Amino acid sequence: MSKLAVILSGCGVYDGAEINEVVCSLLALEENGIAYQCFAPDIDQHHVINHLTGEETGETRNVLQESARIVRGNCQPLSELNAQDFDGLLVPGGFGVAKNLSDLAFKSGDVTINDQFLNACNAFKEAAKPAGYMCIAPALLGKIYGDVNCTIGNDPDTAGVIESHGGSHTNAAVDEIVVDQAHKVVSTPCYMLAENISQAKSGIDKLVVALKGML
Amino acid sequence: MSKLAVILSGCGVYDGAEINEVVCSLLALEENGIAYQCFAPDIDQHHVINHLTGEETGETRNVLQESARIVRGNCQPLSELNAQDFDGLLVPGGFGVAKNLSDLAFKSGDVTINDQFLNACNAFKEAAKPAGYMCIAPALLGKIYGDVNCTIGNDPDTAGVIESHGGSHTNAAVDEIVVDQAHKVVSTPCYMLAENISQAKSGIDKLVVALKGML
Repeated sequence: MSKLAVILSGCGVYDGAEINEVVCSLLALEENGIAYQCFAPDIDQHHVINHLTGEETGETRNVLQESARIVRGNCQPLSELNAQDFDGLLVPGGFGVAKNLSDLAFKSGDVTINDQFLNACNAFKEAAKPAGYMCIAPALLGKIYGDVNCTIGNDPDTAGVIESHGGSHTNAAVDEIVVDQAHKVVSTPCYMLAENISQAKSGIDKLVVALKGML
Repeated sequence: MSKLAVILSGCGVYDGAEINEVVCSLLALEENGIAYQCFAPDIDQHHVINHLTGEETGETRNVLQESARIVRGNCQPLSELNAQDFDGLLVPGGFGVAKNLSDLAFKSGDVTINDQFLNACNAFKEAAKPAGYMCIAPALLGKIYGDVNCTIGNDPDTAGVIESHGGSHTNAAVDEIVVDQAHKVVSTPCYMLAENISQAKSGIDKLVVALKGML
C-alpha cells in the first residue's frame, strides 16, 4: 500500500490549515487505497484569528497541537518527517501555509519558507516523488522547484509570486488540476475559487487520482 | 430548496465537534441538494484539550468562535436559531456534545442539557421536523424525545443513558442508521465505532438520505 505524508499548518482557514481541504484530502486518499500520516511543525502560529470576526485574538497557539484537532490527535512533528518513508507528499491550503509555513501572506517580493517545511518539500523533490499542492500552497512551488508549472486558480498577484521565482502559472477552474509531469507536481485551486465543499472536493479528488498515477 | 440547521459544539473531537463528522455532514447535504446554516452556543467550552496529549491546557475558548473555524466563519449564535426557518436539524458528534452542549461526559445518571441546545432540539421535535443525530449525540435523545428508538453503536453504558430516560437503543454497525419514523429521528454511530473517515462517511451519507426522504 502506498503511503503519503500530509503537511498541516494549523486548524482553521484564517490562521491555519483549511479544514475542509484537509478532510476531503484524507478522504480521497482513503478512497484511493492510499495510506497517510499527517505532520505539522512544532512552532507557534503566526497569530490566532477569531474566525467569526476576522480579528486577531492575542492568544498563542501551537501549529502541531492545533493541526492535531483535525486528525483526532494523530499528527507528528514535521521535524520527524523522513521522505524515505513515504511515496509522496500532500499539502492542503489555508492561510496557515502563508502565515505559519511561510511569510507569503505578508510579502510581495521574495518569500521565506519555514526551514522544516522547505526541507520536507525539497526532500520529496530530490527523491523525484510526486507531490500535490492545493489552494494557496502552490504559490510556494516556484521557490521550491524553480521552473515548475502549476495553478492557484486565476489571481494575478499570487500567480506573480510563482513567476517571480522562475515558475509558470496556468489558470485553472475550481474543478481542474494542473499536472507538471517533469517535476511530478499536481496543483488545484480549491478555496482560492471554491464556493462550497463539493467544489473544493472536485479538484482534490482529481489531484489525488493524478498523484496515484505517479506513485 | 430544503434547508437544515446544523448545531456545532466547538472544533476538535476531544473538546468540541468531531471535525470529520461535520465536514462529511455538510458535504452530504450539498450533494443531496439541501442548504444548511450552522449554529453554536456563544458560551465558553467546558475546557480545552491538547489534542496531541489528551491533557487540559487551562485555556478558555468560546464554542461559537471555535465552531466557526470549521465553516470559514459562517456560524451563527445558537440563541438566534428559529426552527420555523428550517426544514430539519442535524447534530454531529464529538465530545463537545457531551461537554459543551450537555454534561453527559461527566454523569452516569440524569443528564443536563444546555438550555439553548435543548430549546432548539425541542423546537424541531414539537414542529415534527426531521432530525439527525450522530456519534455520541443520540445519547441525549431519550432526554429530548422520551420513547425514541436510536443508536450510538453498541456501547452498553451509553445506550443505558438513552434507556434511563425512556428511550430504546438498537445496536448498529458504523455504516448503518436507525430510523425512528414516529419521531422522524435518524441516528448513526460515526466515530463511536469508525476507524477512519470513510467509515464515518458511510453512515452519515445514509443518515442524510433518510432525512431527505422525510423533508
